[in-house]
Amino acid sequence: MSAQAGASPFRLASRSGGIRPSAIREILKATAQPGVISFAGGLPAAELFPLEEVRRATQEALADDGPAALQYGLTEGYGPLREWIAADLAANSGLKVTAGEVLVVSGSQQGLDLVAKVLLDPGDLVLVENPCYLGAIQAFSAYEARLLGVACDEGGIRPEALRRAMESAPARPKLLYLTPRFQNPTGTSLAPSRQAEIVALAEEFGVPVLEDDPYGRLRYSGPPHQALGALAGTGGWLFLGSTSKFLAPGLRVGWLAVRDPAFFERLVSVKQAADLHTPGLTQRAAFHYLRRPDAVQAHVAILCHVYRRRRDAMLAALARHLPTGCRWTRPDGGLFLWLELPEGADALDLFGAARKQNVLFVPGESFWVGEPKRHTLRLNFSHADPERIDEGVRRLASAWAGLR
Amino acid sequence: MSAQAGASPFRLASRSGGIRPSAIREILKATAQPGVISFAGGLPAAELFPLEEVRRATQEALADDGPAALQYGLTEGYGPLREWIAADLAANSGLKVTAGEVLVVSGSQQGLDLVAKVLLDPGDLVLVENPCYLGAIQAFSAYEARLLGVACDEGGIRPEALRRAMESAPARPKLLYLTPRFQNPTGTSLAPSRQAEIVALAEEFGVPVLEDDPYGRLRYSGPPHQALGALAGTGGWLFLGSTSKFLAPGLRVGWLAVRDPAFFERLVSVKQAADLHTPGLTQRAAFHYLRRPDAVQAHVAILCHVYRRRRDAMLAALARHLPTGCRWTRPDGGLFLWLELPEGADALDLFGAARKQNVLFVPGESFWVGEPKRHTLRLNFSHADPERIDEGVRRLASAWAGLR
Repeated sequence: MSAQAGASPFRLASRSGGIRPSAIREILKATAQPGVISFAGGLPAAELFPLEEVRRATQEALADDGPAALQYGLTEGYGPLREWIAADLAANSGLKVTAGEVLVVSGSQQGLDLVAKVLLDPGDLVLVENPCYLGAIQAFSAYEARLLGVACDEGGIRPEALRRAMESAPARPKLLYLTPRFQNPTGTSLAPSRQAEIVALAEEFGVPVLEDDPYGRLRYSGPPHQALGALAGTGGWLFLGSTSKFLAPGLRVGWLAVRDPAFFERLVSVKQAADLHTPGLTQRAAFHYLRRPDAVQAHVAILCHVYRRRRDAMLAALARHLPTGCRWTRPDGGLFLWLELPEGADALDLFGAARKQNVLFVPGESFWVGEPKRHTLRLNFSHADPERIDEGVRRLASAWAGLR
Repeated sequence: MSAQAGASPFRLASRSGGIRPSAIREILKATAQPGVISFAGGLPAAELFPLEEVRRATQEALADDGPAALQYGLTEGYGPLREWIAADLAANSGLKVTAGEVLVVSGSQQGLDLVAKVLLDPGDLVLVENPCYLGAIQAFSAYEARLLGVACDEGGIRPEALRRAMESAPARPKLLYLTPRFQNPTGTSLAPSRQAEIVALAEEFGVPVLEDDPYGRLRYSGPPHQALGALAGTGGWLFLGSTSKFLAPGLRVGWLAVRDPAFFERLVSVKQAADLHTPGLTQRAAFHYLRRPDAVQAHVAILCHVYRRRRDAMLAALARHLPTGCRWTRPDGGLFLWLELPEGADALDLFGAARKQNVLFVPGESFWVGEPKRHTLRLNFSHADPERIDEGVRRLASAWAGLR
């Protein structure tokens, strides 16, 4: 068969259409401009990165392991790091897994992608919190899954809404995706009183759960929670962790804990075809940093101290500057809070007006599955210092006043 | 809908079945055993890694860029590295691309995966050299593509076979995958006399080409070749490069050069959903190493010197120990050569016998698309020193004699 003259030789896969183009990427490019106060990104505060410790850890990795740190490695990941992860999951999340049940991934985004690739055929159903983490929406949509959003409130996903979604789903969902601690974009956590019911629902309906926990260590108030998976009795529970938010996102080191051996093997095969393995250097740099519990604890304490102040500054600024009719969440941890303008408002209008005042945020639109609530938006409070936060919220309120 | 009791909650995607389970992974695990002489892996020689230079480059990355090296980065890659790649492609491969047409990927395996994900629907046709690089077979099979193997000989892919494959294909192939320099598994290169014809065929039939060039710098004899893409007149040409074979595979830093802007954008979106970006630390470590042309040149010269001796040792050992009736390729570069036992032999039998003598290789079976030629096998010559190579080939010949 001969080609038509002038036609592009690239004929894209049909699934390519399923990926939502990321408006956020464009917004993030604008954050680099001088004078801008950004509440848009999900960026940890770069000035808090433990640069000197990472430098030392990288040196140790190269000194201790020598050429092995630069050679091809096992797809499953670097053994000592997998051991550390298994021990940490037991200690900090209440999850009992062995090192052999841990797959090191290239950041939690790759964990989402691999799980989606192994599980999802076009049209398959995935239940998600609504609003939902955008990276998960992208990963699942890339495989043309159909996302069903489940209603949430200040206590996280609502059990009766989840039961209704399970019962009325036209087919058994392939996956339930949850971020029970300090969710992105809302900052809310699953209320302890709901935990057992959510786990029981997943088991009753035979729907595997992917529990995403990037922010678990960043807790500023409220009681500590175990991972939801600690309550689960079946192998159908996947847990996704990452160093990005408490160490450094540029390392791209995350992990999937997978109790089901056959599913684990499928993930390994798919990861091998995707990138062979996560870089030996960054895995070892992470390990040599993480293996010092005192250093990790001290660093997390600093992060929590600084981020708590920023969260408090943002809550205070919102109360100070925003008019009545606006509502927002009061997260116990994480990097974000969620703002609702009065019903009928459009956060995109506010975005345009705020941008002229050099303040950025992410309109809520992108995070909704199905019909978006256009009066919502996400504010990051980890990136700017308290004075800038107050000034940014003041400008935001002024932009809002200008629209009225 | 309620679940059946006892059923696994994981119901895999249909495409999961398309991934060939990797026999090679099992073989590679055996290479770590003491006393084993391995011709099996595709491992560069670890003792030649420029460990001290990588250490220094990593330090420079953290010192120069500070926190930026640990922060989230652009999906497209680290700017100065993209600039270096574009300049290097012009200087060493004759390819004219801008830094904006370079996408940094997490090793060339990810490049294969991303291109496959953007292009391939189940049942789509991909033309490949036969035998073919296993990682490419895995990447394309993961998206349920149908691979059509095109016959090759000592001069690489055969133009008349490619024309026949294009003409008789039941639909227009979505991609032609080629490794024109020092191919894995055969070690052969595309003969200069064939180059223009191969490029013209791809253009005549409107089939985009993915040119994979992991070994281009590892040339031990014969004239230098430009990249095949230097001859191509259309935007339908993709070029895949990597640091794995001339610097260090554990960094997992590779690149895709893509002239078609729309296709580039699709790749960026898909990479964003797959792993956000390649680690900032390894990208910068690679850049700070690569930006010293003298150091790179000197290191590549050492690699070529050592690997040339190993290739020569293997060619000599094969001539010395193997009986008549065996044939093998004489590669001008790369890491592998390809051995044909007498017709009717089965390399799997030899594998079993050789393993008892502590010699490993990869039976050719895994590399064939369609009906395998079972009397073929791949030998890596870069991993062992000349004495071990001679001893290994001696054992191989003894194992072969024991089977007769």
